[in-house]
Amino acid sequence: MTFPHEKHRAQIEAILRAWNMAPEGAAIAADVLAWADLCGIDSHGMSMLPPYDKLRRAGLLNVEAAPKIARETPVSAVVDAGGGLGHPAGKLAMETAIKKAKAIGMATVVVRNTAHYGACGYYTKMAADAGLIGMSTTTTPGVTVAPTGGAQGRLGTDPWSMSAPGEPGRPFLLDMATATVASGKVRNKANEKLPTPPGWVMSRDGKPSTDPLDLLERKGYLTSLGGTPDGASHKGYGLAAMARVMSAGLAGAPMLLRPEQASAPPTGSLAHFFLALDPGLFRDADEFRADVADFCDSLRATTPVDPARPVQVAGDPERASAARRMRDGIPVGKGLLAQVKALAEESGAAWLLG
Amino acid sequence: MTFPHEKHRAQIEAILRAWNMAPEGAAIAADVLAWADLCGIDSHGMSMLPPYDKLRRAGLLNVEAAPKIARETPVSAVVDAGGGLGHPAGKLAMETAIKKAKAIGMATVVVRNTAHYGACGYYTKMAADAGLIGMSTTTTPGVTVAPTGGAQGRLGTDPWSMSAPGEPGRPFLLDMATATVASGKVRNKANEKLPTPPGWVMSRDGKPSTDPLDLLERKGYLTSLGGTPDGASHKGYGLAAMARVMSAGLAGAPMLLRPEQASAPPTGSLAHFFLALDPGLFRDADEFRADVADFCDSLRATTPVDPARPVQVAGDPERASAARRMRDGIPVGKGLLAQVKALAEESGAAWLLG
Repeated sequence: MTFPHEKHRAQIEAILRAWNMAPEGAAIAADVLAWADLCGIDSHGMSMLPPYDKLRRAGLLNVEAAPKIARETPVSAVVDAGGGLGHPAGKLAMETAIKKAKAIGMATVVVRNTAHYGACGYYTKMAADAGLIGMSTTTTPGVTVAPTGGAQGRLGTDPWSMSAPGEPGRPFLLDMATATVASGKVRNKANEKLPTPPGWVMSRDGKPSTDPLDLLERKGYLTSLGGTPDGASHKGYGLAAMARVMSAGLAGAPMLLRPEQASAPPTGSLAHFFLALDPGLFRDADEFRADVADFCDSLRATTPVDPARPVQVAGDPERASAARRMRDGIPVGKGLLAQVKALAEESGAAWLLG
Repeated sequence: MTFPHEKHRAQIEAILRAWNMAPEGAAIAADVLAWADLCGIDSHGMSMLPPYDKLRRAGLLNVEAAPKIARETPVSAVVDAGGGLGHPAGKLAMETAIKKAKAIGMATVVVRNTAHYGACGYYTKMAADAGLIGMSTTTTPGVTVAPTGGAQGRLGTDPWSMSAPGEPGRPFLLDMATATVASGKVRNKANEKLPTPPGWVMSRDGKPSTDPLDLLERKGYLTSLGGTPDGASHKGYGLAAMARVMSAGLAGAPMLLRPEQASAPPTGSLAHFFLALDPGLFRDADEFRADVADFCDSLRATTPVDPARPVQVAGDPERASAARRMRDGIPVGKGLLAQVKALAEESGAAWLLG
């Protein structure tokens, strides 16, 4: 089934409102989640409602909380999310970073006492849309990734997003997990009875594996970007560790969770980081923007391996998905649709996808 | 042959002085280059003197230039390296970022009109040693890396370094090329008549290859971190592109060089980026530091794949090398030693490694 973006977004908002989330917060979270689905980042859209509900019911997520600024200087702020969802806090944080960067040139804002905030590219896109360079990173509750040389899950997918304004409406927008792939991709291979490509999965004793069941059924691990020590996975591991320094470290949140906390992180145990930087500090901002646009076009003009598949720049695949789905609707699988319908019924939210 | 660190450093300094580099600048560049050799980053130490000499003789490197601050605000500066080596400019830039971050909380400094600046970890270590978070990135002249989906070299090794203070003397210190490996590692495999591991090299038509000669003799390419599209090389490619946005983009330098410029980049065509951030903006800086130290220790305590090889944290391998080489001396291969001796003779520098 596919649904128009506006209806898809409204359904998410209706459920969040039925959970007693404040109207402004619910509108923001629905924007962030529906944007991810629009961009093809299906792992971070409507599919997050069932896990959010699970946390809420377990008393580990304070959906009614409103974020507030707890501390600030001209170049920084700390936002306290009150143990609630990270989307309203994340938007407030990046808005604050942008406002300060417009005033003084750059700013960093961290969010503490928070939960999942959706796809990090949503926030760095806000900076690029405001003519600024953006960065964001966050802790993730998973303990599915073994550090290079390790045979024990310690880290999660710990993503980074970085953006820069270029051609209007087409910013450079990198949004990447520091794991090679997320576990959803491994599950897809298992469902099709296919092996995983080399470098995606490690067995429980830390050996490279191409069997998806080593991860899914035999307590193996995901790899850091690079895949194997030979493939320089210490770099993906290093980027994951730095993600935790910048988010949990600066916010004073737990830098590592215990395995039993992965599916039910303690209330407010995550943290997010946001940075906004004005290129006008260094040179004419319009010339910077034109140079970034030319750079992206020049990369797109690279001789392609397959003439039918031109080289892309960070942000291009998501924009292509968004254009397609804005036209054709957002697909929602049967299984997810049934789960979301049950959430609507249980909470008394209107059912808009009937 | 091995030489004590102090003698090794003095030899580098003597040659730079004989090239008419200013005494302060030569001392800094020798510090940076000898530090890389000490840390085992042999590609960025004394071995850079022959290529620097080649540029100098071609009139493409103004060794006598002194860096100066061309523009500044309370949170930023632009350093102009005058077409000279990047080390003195880089040190001035990070010192400036640190001073401003100590005053206001964070700062970004870019260097324009510059050349190679050595190993980027040297500069972020300065920030960590000052109790701050550090970042640095730079353009590199190489056009050896094909973007994901491309069959044409466009990018270089475009590194990132990120640091954080932790246990005193043991900062978190990530210093990574965004290519899977540098070409030197491919050359080592060719010399031993060994195949390269999957994901290091692409053939000229952009296909994955395990033949080092595809890169070295048949105009193939290095890969971005991730190695293959299946291995998520678009992430390494995205980090390389962002490195160029942050350095060349902000400094107004060329964001891409043409292939014929790779071995002889035009004077002052590179650019560097430096950021310093005070964790004290967000929480007690000593508590932050203690948490980062605990985090690193906890990662080191991960169950290892091989009990004889404990899990390491970014910065650990370089510190181990530095301790070893400070004790045993820095090894210099016969070929490099002969080249450096020739440089000393031609320039009239004292020969200290006889």
